[in-house]
Amino acid sequence: SKRYTITLLPGDGIGPEVISVATNVLKFAGFLEGIEFKFQEMPVGGAALDLTGVPLPEETLSAAKQSDAVLLGAIGGYKWDKNEKHLKPETGLLQLRAGLKVFANLRPATVLPQLVDASTLKKEVAVGVDLMVVRELTGGIYFGKPRGFGTNENGEEIGFNTEVYATHEIDRIARVAFETARKRHGKLCSVDKANVLEASILWRNRVTAIASEYPDVELSHMYVDNAAMQLVRNPKQFDTIVTNNIFGDILSDEASMITGSIGMLPSASLGESGPGLFEPIHGSAPDIAGQDKANPLATVLSAAMLLKYGLEEEIAAKRIEAAVLDTLSRGYRTGDIYSDGNAFHFSSGNPRIEETR
Amino acid sequence: SKRYTITLLPGDGIGPEVISVATNVLKFAGFLEGIEFKFQEMPVGGAALDLTGVPLPEETLSAAKQSDAVLLGAIGGYKWDKNEKHLKPETGLLQLRAGLKVFANLRPATVLPQLVDASTLKKEVAVGVDLMVVRELTGGIYFGKPRGFGTNENGEEIGFNTEVYATHEIDRIARVAFETARKRHGKLCSVDKANVLEASILWRNRVTAIASEYPDVELSHMYVDNAAMQLVRNPKQFDTIVTNNIFGDILSDEASMITGSIGMLPSASLGESGPGLFEPIHGSAPDIAGQDKANPLATVLSAAMLLKYGLEEEIAAKRIEAAVLDTLSRGYRTGDIYSDGNAFHFSSGNPRIEETR
Ligand SMILES: CC(C)[C@H](C(=O)O)[C@@H](O)C(=O)O
Ligand SMILES: CC(C)[C@H](C(=O)O)[C@@H](O)C(=O)O
Repeated sequence: SKRYTITLLPGDGIGPEVISVATNVLKFAGFLEGIEFKFQEMPVGGAALDLTGVPLPEETLSAAKQSDAVLLGAIGGYKWDKNEKHLKPETGLLQLRAGLKVFANLRPATVLPQLVDASTLKKEVAVGVDLMVVRELTGGIYFGKPRGFGTNENGEEIGFNTEVYATHEIDRIARVAFETARKRHGKLCSVDKANVLEASILWRNRVTAIASEYPDVELSHMYVDNAAMQLVRNPKQFDTIVTNNIFGDILSDEASMITGSIGMLPSASLGESGPGLFEPIHGSAPDIAGQDKANPLATVLSAAMLLKYGLEEEIAAKRIEAAVLDTLSRGYRTGDIYSDGNAFHFSSGNPRIEETR
Repeated sequence: SKRYTITLLPGDGIGPEVISVATNVLKFAGFLEGIEFKFQEMPVGGAALDLTGVPLPEETLSAAKQSDAVLLGAIGGYKWDKNEKHLKPETGLLQLRAGLKVFANLRPATVLPQLVDASTLKKEVAVGVDLMVVRELTGGIYFGKPRGFGTNENGEEIGFNTEVYATHEIDRIARVAFETARKRHGKLCSVDKANVLEASILWRNRVTAIASEYPDVELSHMYVDNAAMQLVRNPKQFDTIVTNNIFGDILSDEASMITGSIGMLPSASLGESGPGLFEPIHGSAPDIAGQDKANPLATVLSAAMLLKYGLEEEIAAKRIEAAVLDTLSRGYRTGDIYSDGNAFHFSSGNPRIEETR
């Protein structure tokens, strides 16, 4: 039987409880498919700060690197919100992405037939939405140098960051995006701000150049402001979207909310080689942590992505996806996706969203 | 009677036709209120490129500077899309904003009762949306230096831009935002990415510091990815939003699409002193230019903002706003906001949106 080592990073807030559900699901899917998992649990984020004083201990990173895949719960919480930048839980997450070199972040946003009412969009706009955002994850303004604080020529304080992309960074994310689009519906939309930014002009040029390797994929370009509109106007026009780190952060969250089921959405972060990082896109929701209210399905579906993209165990992955759909079809719901027959309560708080995320 | 000089910049595509409608409306509102306008028309954008070889001729900028207010139609079109950066119509617009020093861009997004069906959002989510995005317009990554192309230490090509804010730039836009919120419902949400960017940390610190001058305004902070979600989940939670240039570009377009009436939305760009710049937020829609299909109301409402914010002619401004509502209540519609009793045709093209914008 096949054996894999999985690093579990429960993290903060609802992280531990959703990881525990997903681990059980993985075990059972593995049992059915003759796969054996060795799980090793390590601290990250606020949990690691409390334990070790840093948000990503060296032991955690090296354990993660030596395993076959990494499953993360969630990080962050009010407790560490006022910490200095290098001592924030978020910094641990950024260090983990950089450390694992997972430059390609895949974020599907799908409106499930069972949950179409959960979207704030009209039914005819929401039904059938099925898109994938491919976000560049280890470059751009998140990591660009120089960055920091300083004074300008008038002696005034300034804060600055650098948006920068090199050709190989764009080429490799473009290839992942074209491959992804090829396995989906063959349409790729590259999002940038090439009418204003030089970094985006290079982005557009390189994506266009790489397109010649994928004649079967239909490439289009869109400015980021227009993309933010089009996601609201007619999300069904999109199949696969590729974009930089910061635009991907914004657009993938917007897309996820369009499905109405942010507690349902997984993500995969992949590098050239080495283990991938799999995590729900929701936050740590400290308000409801430990109350058994959290929707574990985003993490369960992240475990399915782990099997599919991380271990190439496609059948076990499909088993988990089928089980999730089956559970929903039988009517089981957590509060965030529960509708009382008629309408969802949009204006009441959505426990999946943490204000600080 | 009072006299004002207005610089008209029709620009490209549908620009000339919407400017001509708005000019007539201005004249009539002026006639009713004893205001006399002198209109001077100047070229900008693609029109200026064709005429003079540059997207913002010196004569246009100096005429604009010497007038009491500037009304712009729209700029851009396929014809100039492949131009080099300094010869793009968009560059003319950025030069105009910088030249007039209009650092504060006010973009209201309101769901009019008459047009609530035009939103792709469910009625209960869309009814009552009334928010204002205050976008910083002459700083940040749009203008930050260094910028350009180069090679990195591996000899690879890079493209780079600088996101940078100095304290006085943040302080002055924060004050405009607090003043705006004070005149609205007293709630200001500052949007940044302070968990990742130093430029955002300074932004958050300065906005928080300026808040002490406005104890009557309730300030909150939100990360930009969360804001992109919250605009879809529950846009009614927002009153006034203040944010940087690039986030404001993205979020204000998203907010405008939430109203479903992008052909309806005006904007005002204001500086410390000197004339303001007023323009519809839609693009130049070259596909429908010259066919008398364009919705002129965004430009008409921009003329109302010109009267209110640019000339402090509040009564004339209110007359125009009332006339717009009256026109809609009588059932007059352009195609983009026409509903056949039941549903809007979301998936058919919206002529207001130009793909290249
Ligand atoms: C927590 C934060 C640093 C992170 C990001 O901005 O990448 C999050 O928003 C995400 O999208 O995973
Ligand atoms: C045309 C473009 C340069 C401009 C911008 O990005 O500011 C436009 O999108 C806008 O929002 O007015």
